[in-house]
Amino acid sequence: MKRVKMVVAYDGTNYCGWQIQPNGITIEEVLNRELSRLLGEEIVVTGASRTDSGVHSLGNVCAFDTNTRMPAEKISYALNQSLPEDIVVQESSEVSLDFHPRFSKSRKTYEYRILNRKFRNPTRRLDTYFYHYPLDVEKMNQAAQYIVGEHDFASFCSSGSQAETTVRTVYSCQVNKDSENDIISIRITGGGFLYNMVRIIAGTLIKIGGSDMSAETMKDIIEAADRAAAGPTAPANGLTMIGLEYEEIQQ
Amino acid sequence: MKRVKMVVAYDGTNYCGWQIQPNGITIEEVLNRELSRLLGEEIVVTGASRTDSGVHSLGNVCAFDTNTRMPAEKISYALNQSLPEDIVVQESSEVSLDFHPRFSKSRKTYEYRILNRKFRNPTRRLDTYFYHYPLDVEKMNQAAQYIVGEHDFASFCSSGSQAETTVRTVYSCQVNKDSENDIISIRITGGGFLYNMVRIIAGTLIKIGGSDMSAETMKDIIEAADRAAAGPTAPANGLTMIGLEYEEIQQ
Repeated sequence: MKRVKMVVAYDGTNYCGWQIQPNGITIEEVLNRELSRLLGEEIVVTGASRTDSGVHSLGNVCAFDTNTRMPAEKISYALNQSLPEDIVVQESSEVSLDFHPRFSKSRKTYEYRILNRKFRNPTRRLDTYFYHYPLDVEKMNQAAQYIVGEHDFASFCSSGSQAETTVRTVYSCQVNKDSENDIISIRITGGGFLYNMVRIIAGTLIKIGGSDMSAETMKDIIEAADRAAAGPTAPANGLTMIGLEYEEIQQ
Repeated sequence: MKRVKMVVAYDGTNYCGWQIQPNGITIEEVLNRELSRLLGEEIVVTGASRTDSGVHSLGNVCAFDTNTRMPAEKISYALNQSLPEDIVVQESSEVSLDFHPRFSKSRKTYEYRILNRKFRNPTRRLDTYFYHYPLDVEKMNQAAQYIVGEHDFASFCSSGSQAETTVRTVYSCQVNKDSENDIISIRITGGGFLYNMVRIIAGTLIKIGGSDMSAETMKDIIEAADRAAAGPTAPANGLTMIGLEYEEIQQ
């Protein structure tokens, strides 16, 4: 038996998120089904980031165990033949049996994209959140710097969370605007994120950037440790899981 | 009666191009239908660029005549309420009765996008052409410079064309790679383009960039004035009509 790690990109528009659930088709379900068909045994993948309905990915990671004699590197090519066009495996490789996509230590990067202009852009409607009021990008970036470091992020955690602690470490958070296409991107890297944390940070930065609240308000919001202090949860379609970097993977 | 100019963005994926035709739904048809409903009279739009099936637009232009008392600037907002999510009017304004979207002199800009990497990116599958062999971007840009200027572009014209002359002027043609997302863009501005001209230029640049052909080959291809000398017509989904700048619009 060997353990295979896969990097998976998807357009989340037509899926009810990563994790299998009774009410609709999910990424995990499609991967399990097509891997089981391909390898001729029942395959169950474990995902690193259980992205919500409508959230996209360029580099989510999953792993599964298999008895196949097919080289791990070839699985990505073979699997892509049968996957729908909105799910594409980017890479597959053999890893040691103690690798776990979620529990092995990693740096996770997400990007939240806001289309900030007067009218919608239909060609980017799938992977950006349209917000037409003006936003102060520089102030948003200043506010984002308060997020960096180890903090209690209780203000940025949806109530459904089962996390034991709300303390997390954010390594970087950068807000930039690409003037060519009017897209503001919030790129955030951390050791781990609470449920809806990135979308609540995005919603809070949008609230600060579009009002007369100061950048320093972000400090007070963190210190409040109260979900009611932060801004709304920004819509799922603006969020993309960029990728994970594991500290060490034995191969 | 007044003449109204509209700037229209669309995701062309689900349309049989701009121009009305018997076999499927087109952008022109949807605009005529929704404008006629909105303004309570039969409206027929005239488009600047009759984009092909699957081609996108950020700024195609059309115009129509109307007796409505609604201010021209308000039409965009009202119309967007009833348009499908893949067509969005960016702007509407009154223009003089001698303005014609296609015959009034303008600079037209198109962008052809190539996703150049090992695996597809599902979140950009709608507006990029996936090409996984390596491409020499610098050589493509050198080759693109031979396109600039007034030339007989007969080598870059599909046989179905009814153009009286194949001489056209290209003002600029730039090839760039955005390494962040592996997208090579070919951006071309000209006074006018022959049928499929941009897609054949893109197909030829891809052919040069992915082979040992020299950048100077482009010069020979132009001089041949023969469609067979150029590369294939690149697929429609990589092409986006960026916009038109008219020399003068009387308002």
